[in-house]
Amino acid sequence: MEKYISLAHGDGGELSHRLIREIFVEAFGDGNAAMFDAASLNITGSKIAVTTDSFVIKPIFFPGGSIGKLAVAGTVNDLSVSGAMPLYLTCGFVIEEGFSISDLKRIVSDMANEAKKTGVTIVAGDTKVVERGSADGVYINTTGIGIYEQGIGCSLEFEEGDAIVVSGTIGDHGIAVLAARGELGITVPTKSDCASLNQMLSEVLTSTNGVRIMRDPTRGGLATTLVEIAEDFHLTMKINESSLPVKEEVHGVCDLLGFDPLYLANEGKAIIIVANKDKDRVIEILRGFPEGHDAVVIGSIIGKGKGQLLLETPLGSNRLLNRLSGTMFPRIC
Amino acid sequence: MEKYISLAHGDGGELSHRLIREIFVEAFGDGNAAMFDAASLNITGSKIAVTTDSFVIKPIFFPGGSIGKLAVAGTVNDLSVSGAMPLYLTCGFVIEEGFSISDLKRIVSDMANEAKKTGVTIVAGDTKVVERGSADGVYINTTGIGIYEQGIGCSLEFEEGDAIVVSGTIGDHGIAVLAARGELGITVPTKSDCASLNQMLSEVLTSTNGVRIMRDPTRGGLATTLVEIAEDFHLTMKINESSLPVKEEVHGVCDLLGFDPLYLANEGKAIIIVANKDKDRVIEILRGFPEGHDAVVIGSIIGKGKGQLLLETPLGSNRLLNRLSGTMFPRIC
Repeated sequence: MEKYISLAHGDGGELSHRLIREIFVEAFGDGNAAMFDAASLNITGSKIAVTTDSFVIKPIFFPGGSIGKLAVAGTVNDLSVSGAMPLYLTCGFVIEEGFSISDLKRIVSDMANEAKKTGVTIVAGDTKVVERGSADGVYINTTGIGIYEQGIGCSLEFEEGDAIVVSGTIGDHGIAVLAARGELGITVPTKSDCASLNQMLSEVLTSTNGVRIMRDPTRGGLATTLVEIAEDFHLTMKINESSLPVKEEVHGVCDLLGFDPLYLANEGKAIIIVANKDKDRVIEILRGFPEGHDAVVIGSIIGKGKGQLLLETPLGSNRLLNRLSGTMFPRIC
Repeated sequence: MEKYISLAHGDGGELSHRLIREIFVEAFGDGNAAMFDAASLNITGSKIAVTTDSFVIKPIFFPGGSIGKLAVAGTVNDLSVSGAMPLYLTCGFVIEEGFSISDLKRIVSDMANEAKKTGVTIVAGDTKVVERGSADGVYINTTGIGIYEQGIGCSLEFEEGDAIVVSGTIGDHGIAVLAARGELGITVPTKSDCASLNQMLSEVLTSTNGVRIMRDPTRGGLATTLVEIAEDFHLTMKINESSLPVKEEVHGVCDLLGFDPLYLANEGKAIIIVANKDKDRVIEILRGFPEGHDAVVIGSIIGKGKGQLLLETPLGSNRLLNRLSGTMFPRIC
């Protein structure tokens, strides 16, 4: 195999064929030559979940993960928070001419490992090559297909007093990626939280019937995701600043550089809004998984009708939070 | 709405929200805010087809189509040639900072029109923005989901004497795109053949039971696609050079500049291998559609065991054809 991607790897001819066979089918597949055409899936149950996401993160390797791990975990999580069981993924690569084939192999291997860990199968793929300078290394799209199981899911029915739970510390991914870019001007030990949450969230859903909604607070962070829920379902929510789980070093960087962890991206966290009666059970389940070790209740639904998110500060005053406005960090996922 | 895409359109905050609502949901959707999260699909029948494709074509607008039309038709055709009925599409956009919002609207509108024409629904999407210089305008991934209907499909069982049919003239897309780039140094009147073939191919499949396989000869052209079939199924095929349908102006450009229409990309053509007894019926059906007006038989399967493709020249000699080797044209789809 060559050392670098050339335009000929993308023209559909002999080199494309070898790239698919030697890298993608080798890592993902059962040697099925049809892998990179339309795949045929046997799905039982007629309610299918589908989601798509493109990954353009910079740098492509960062502490705690890579664009490959992220491309699998991110789409698995989108399905999982919707209440679906993830089953299949497709992947579409746009690769820049000159990209290192050993980096590509590492990325594809990260994808294969994460897929194996989560139990999803990569069933179809596509590779395009663009000229040098026309893309930044590699972009990956993953589309996920799952099923909604009868009787298991989020009710989307809310009540005053429902608890807002977050499955762990916030802002880790954002700070880890910015640090890996060298943009902070300081070194931090923080790793990205990049992880697939399907097993943890599946256990939450099958063990309780009080889950109202689940979401993954990625781009825009915890605050933006909660504002979206508040607006979509006309809920007034309040979260307590002092209960927000933030790692000490993330807190330190935010204080120093003026970031707000509420708006930093996460890639391995879930927000779960759950009936008050079930909140302890949910916390217990989450803490049984390494990804949910720091799960806590951070607030509750305090009213209906208006869509707004309030932050109660340690001094007891309430601040209205909006969704992220203006660019904080491009290329974070 | 702004005139140009900024990084803030991609950070998951207020501007991302507006971009999705005002451009994508406006064009594709029923106003459902969930459109850009996981979608829930009701699918009857347990055999699902899935395929994915990224589109990086340059230029993004060309005679006969655009990246938007292509992104829908290309994925619809991948499903259709596999024998599936296309139902749903997802779309993932990677957009360069500074990209014109009016161009984006035009692309999205082309997608919506083509989806409507073909009867597929765009059910989920994603938008990422990368810094100026990090992508070439816009890249689109579409993933398609369809169903295989009981008793309808390609047999993948071949016999000596099976006819090889192509649904129309070859090379139109390749020449039209190269001309639109200004790379030919001459002007040609050729339009891309970019079109969704689902209705035509569905009629072929439901009207005959002799279809062995269908493929769309895109990147790599007719020859590469036929070599792949020959190798995958260990067939010796022969096609007749004099029966290949090539538009006069495409022939002229190829002669002048040394291109081979057998290796030029097509985006609205199908290869159909069919039992000899059914070939006339298939040609009749194809010719009943504007996209199949120039359908002809170009060759046949002459043996089994070895995977090879022969071209019979007008002088009666046989030439062995290989798949495309080396870059002819990057960014053709």
